[in-house]
Amino acid sequence: MSTVTTTTPAVPRFARRMQGVSNELASILALSAGSGLISFAGGLPDPRTFPVAVLEELSGALLRDDPAVALQYTPTPGLPGLREAFRDRLEQTDGHRPAWEELMVTSGTIDAISLLARALVDPGDVVAMESPTYLGAIDAFRGVEGEVRGVPLDEEGIDVAAFEQLCRTAPPKLLYTVPDHQNPTGITMSEERRRRLLDLCREHGVVVLEDVAYRELSFTPRRPPSLWSIAPEVVVQAATTSKTFFPGVRLGWAVGPAPVIEQMVVAKQNSDQCAGGFGQRLLEEYLRGGHMDPQLQRSNALYKRRCELMLASLETHLPDGVTWNRPGGGFFIWLTLPDSIDTVALARRARDAGVAFVPGRPFHPDGTGLNTMRLAFSLADDGVIDEGVERLGALIRSAMEAQ
Amino acid sequence: MSTVTTTTPAVPRFARRMQGVSNELASILALSAGSGLISFAGGLPDPRTFPVAVLEELSGALLRDDPAVALQYTPTPGLPGLREAFRDRLEQTDGHRPAWEELMVTSGTIDAISLLARALVDPGDVVAMESPTYLGAIDAFRGVEGEVRGVPLDEEGIDVAAFEQLCRTAPPKLLYTVPDHQNPTGITMSEERRRRLLDLCREHGVVVLEDVAYRELSFTPRRPPSLWSIAPEVVVQAATTSKTFFPGVRLGWAVGPAPVIEQMVVAKQNSDQCAGGFGQRLLEEYLRGGHMDPQLQRSNALYKRRCELMLASLETHLPDGVTWNRPGGGFFIWLTLPDSIDTVALARRARDAGVAFVPGRPFHPDGTGLNTMRLAFSLADDGVIDEGVERLGALIRSAMEAQ
Repeated sequence: MSTVTTTTPAVPRFARRMQGVSNELASILALSAGSGLISFAGGLPDPRTFPVAVLEELSGALLRDDPAVALQYTPTPGLPGLREAFRDRLEQTDGHRPAWEELMVTSGTIDAISLLARALVDPGDVVAMESPTYLGAIDAFRGVEGEVRGVPLDEEGIDVAAFEQLCRTAPPKLLYTVPDHQNPTGITMSEERRRRLLDLCREHGVVVLEDVAYRELSFTPRRPPSLWSIAPEVVVQAATTSKTFFPGVRLGWAVGPAPVIEQMVVAKQNSDQCAGGFGQRLLEEYLRGGHMDPQLQRSNALYKRRCELMLASLETHLPDGVTWNRPGGGFFIWLTLPDSIDTVALARRARDAGVAFVPGRPFHPDGTGLNTMRLAFSLADDGVIDEGVERLGALIRSAMEAQ
Repeated sequence: MSTVTTTTPAVPRFARRMQGVSNELASILALSAGSGLISFAGGLPDPRTFPVAVLEELSGALLRDDPAVALQYTPTPGLPGLREAFRDRLEQTDGHRPAWEELMVTSGTIDAISLLARALVDPGDVVAMESPTYLGAIDAFRGVEGEVRGVPLDEEGIDVAAFEQLCRTAPPKLLYTVPDHQNPTGITMSEERRRRLLDLCREHGVVVLEDVAYRELSFTPRRPPSLWSIAPEVVVQAATTSKTFFPGVRLGWAVGPAPVIEQMVVAKQNSDQCAGGFGQRLLEEYLRGGHMDPQLQRSNALYKRRCELMLASLETHLPDGVTWNRPGGGFFIWLTLPDSIDTVALARRARDAGVAFVPGRPFHPDGTGLNTMRLAFSLADDGVIDEGVERLGALIRSAMEAQ
């Protein structure tokens, strides 16, 4: 036996699928860290919305009465009680009750995206998505070597004519969309646009992945029907409870055609096997106890107030030539600056000035959007929003004057 | 706009990577369900070992004192406090302290396996593993279209000569191994075998994935050094706390060369983004409070007693011609029956007779092992073990007589 005494750490050749995947999500979360910083960066819920008192009661009761289930492994599609509670919830919110085998518990939206990507997308398959869009989804589809194609969106949502053109020239296998209070733009797709889009997807055999992460975070009760409720035969809806319950247990659901959910369950067996049972039981009791809607009312009142504060500050402090939307929900305001402004450089200067935001380029599958930026109003205290926006305004003004 | 009114559920063409992946883990977990059944099937910890009283205290304190961290998203590599606690633990158990960037928090061993598979294995890359081995790993590597190759093992662990032969004929990119109280055979690799194996892996540039799921579940204090502690420059160690803490929060660690851990973190961003913060904080406090070792002592005493009960029953009830090992830890006893006996058929008859076990074939990457079977002693009550083994003995005897 030869004794090789190499002590250099191994740096193996990594898999090809890792080459297209960026590290930008981590960099963005890192931007929001640091004490004393006014952070408009990460899309994090405010801890004030976490239902601490109810959780104390529920966790105590579960540990006393049901530890053998709550602390054990669960079936891969989730505990029956939570699946049933999610079905009830969908009947209430979406007006359509899925069959038992059409719904699974996930470890959050990004888990559902990753599971569907692995179940469905071969290297080279075209995946269409809004541009800009949630960058975790861009990376998840690149991570299975999907060919990611951005489709523009306007104030009514995805540009259906551009999507139809894509269907004719490079037919997508999958369309990923965030129709409600979109990340990063805050745009909500109109009902007419939804119906036209789904007709096209049916016609061209495109599976739709509807990400409803921000759907329940609406400032008004009115909302268009979910894509899944309109076309359950072609839509997989992925939801997270990180913004409506809390993120510290990784939970959500995926609902869609039974054969697709079945393959996602197989993929999940070889991923984390199941979502945590303790969180599943907590969430089931939380939903059964009727705590979700009152929490949502409180959360949405908080986020609406912050959004209005930020919009007022933008009016006050930002120079002419910068535009933004007025979101009806969610966590984000999307800014477009003059073409010549580089928001990646601006983000570094802002960080030095004690303010964090996310530059818009990483949200664009084609690497454009250098003059755009995302501001999250979800986590910043009311009292610092105006100060943060004022600092940003000064930096933007100075960048524009330097041109 | 045409209005297509298809209502047939979409059955898309699934990705090629799903073709090699079996659904057998789900079927096996299903075998252990059903009331009145004596289950020797799933490798589940006994709920009696769950630290309920300590958890009540810790969860109450966390919800009162630290909800803004415990209920929030965490950084993808895990909360700093838990990473630090894991580093301390490794220094204590493995005699080697990893650098900060060499350790990440995972959502359990299967998460680590899947992350490394995605980071490292391109379609067609050879992945070596013991035959038989943990079937979740077989599926995880097939799920990235790896070329899975089984290497035989004997009572001292993996057959090093056979592995060396494989290195010469079809060089593996990765070796997956469970060196301690292996799943499914219960075998522990000898120290000499460990050192020879690692020399070979260094020589041939093979990355080693060491799965230590059962390492701490030892019936005796003596244990060989971990592969990672011998060769940290080529080994990634993946651990779960599902058997030492509880499974209902999905947690574990991966420790290995920094460049490899870095790529696994990137893969995790697009998988579940982070393990649940609530479980991470609970586990950190649990480790800091010194609760892990006393729990392990109690758990191992329970499992050792069950193992001895099962071994005694096997001696009493099983016919000549059936052989099994005497495990020094873990959850499993591995039986080899006469060549002519089909344990898949036997499992169905056993299920009808009220006993569940797992046939051995799915643990074999090459589909052999039809005459082998795995008995888990971890979950069956002391009082039913003899009855269950007696029923199995009668079924095996009758199958042998029918030949």
